[in-house]
Amino acid sequence: MPAGGPRADRARRVADVLRQQVHAGAYAAGLPAEHELAAEFSVSRNTIREALAVLKREGLIDRGPRVGTHVAQRKYDHGLDALLGLKETFRDFGEVRNEVRAAVAVSAPPAVARRLRLQPGEQAVFIERLRYLGELPLSLDLTYLSPDVGIPVLEFALETNDLFALIERVTEQRLGTAALALEAIPADAHSAAALQVPDGAPLLMLERLTSLDDGRPVDLEYIRMRGDRITMRGNMMRSKT
Amino acid sequence: MPAGGPRADRARRVADVLRQQVHAGAYAAGLPAEHELAAEFSVSRNTIREALAVLKREGLIDRGPRVGTHVAQRKYDHGLDALLGLKETFRDFGEVRNEVRAAVAVSAPPAVARRLRLQPGEQAVFIERLRYLGELPLSLDLTYLSPDVGIPVLEFALETNDLFALIERVTEQRLGTAALALEAIPADAHSAAALQVPDGAPLLMLERLTSLDDGRPVDLEYIRMRGDRITMRGNMMRSKT
Repeated sequence: MPAGGPRADRARRVADVLRQQVHAGAYAAGLPAEHELAAEFSVSRNTIREALAVLKREGLIDRGPRVGTHVAQRKYDHGLDALLGLKETFRDFGEVRNEVRAAVAVSAPPAVARRLRLQPGEQAVFIERLRYLGELPLSLDLTYLSPDVGIPVLEFALETNDLFALIERVTEQRLGTAALALEAIPADAHSAAALQVPDGAPLLMLERLTSLDDGRPVDLEYIRMRGDRITMRGNMMRSKT
Repeated sequence: MPAGGPRADRARRVADVLRQQVHAGAYAAGLPAEHELAAEFSVSRNTIREALAVLKREGLIDRGPRVGTHVAQRKYDHGLDALLGLKETFRDFGEVRNEVRAAVAVSAPPAVARRLRLQPGEQAVFIERLRYLGELPLSLDLTYLSPDVGIPVLEFALETNDLFALIERVTEQRLGTAALALEAIPADAHSAAALQVPDGAPLLMLERLTSLDDGRPVDLEYIRMRGDRITMRGNMMRSKT
């Protein structure tokens, strides 16, 4: 491990490597002792302690006297490569259920209407869901659907279905592509309470405009994901061919 | 705008639409007055004030008596679709310069060696850069390069070149693909100071393993991007064909 610079620099370098080790499942039975990590990274135990403090603050690990250092809770991978709903994504990890906070026809705000190619003031369907994996809140999703898609979608059980699946069912079309924007933002107090994280905790904020296979955008979503529970993963190419 | 629920729910709905409007450049001359926004979204002025407070906290807008509401600083788009260096990405926005904090051969930590397919204890090249667009720090990048790539890269001016360009130059190969993991994490105090953000501010944390065109991974990076200055954008398809 590079020895230069203040201890905080070395701690950050160690923390970054350990973080991905944790994600990769290397420490399911607990992290190695401080002196073992110190030897592995060729740094002091104080540097290891500082690195572990960084990861603890991220909510990734727990530490305690006598009990050692453990992974606090696994982080879930969400794909950047293919357009999948949460329920499809986490099929192998548990039941996704949705607390439906709103499901109603609204007059679309002008900026929303433009994205969905609706007339100003035309109705859209607004759906707000707090999404859980088992008992763990993962994301708070705000969705605007084009009325011809959204009105029939409201007939289905929103608590247990992905919207993507319902949209394909009512349109009898496959979804095509989505344009997405991904940011890191601090949780406002109210969103933080819903997601059971501290006020100001980092969230992955995803804005996603999804089109049907015929190219028409029908689904505009604003999705707040818990930063401490979701990792987005994907692959990129140097140049598109 | 859906009228149901507490005011904080309505404020969040407004904030999400306004955020993307700001990103889209809709308010270069300043945001509309509160009563205009209230009419546009069919909510009260108090709800608009709460929505603007959310965006102010994100660092997106500034508000003041008499001066009104303005975009604080533009956010820069970084692509999720194609593998581009920062300098290539921001060519049209200004000069990217790198403060090189470390550039040195190191004994690769075991977890890094595995990712780069090196023998345990084999040397790698470690490069740490604080990257600026003009005077604005955008990201703090920690990079491990395979020795056959990294040693010759050290001969070049790291202050002014993207590593991607240098890797292609010294290997006389194009880069191929990259596997990436994207998270939202809180800035530790030391990283926060380097990036000139408050302690605990949300960062986009990107881990990226980049391979040459022949499939060999040569470049493992841990990149902390300022959440308030970078948006990652891309497109997804429903299913890969």
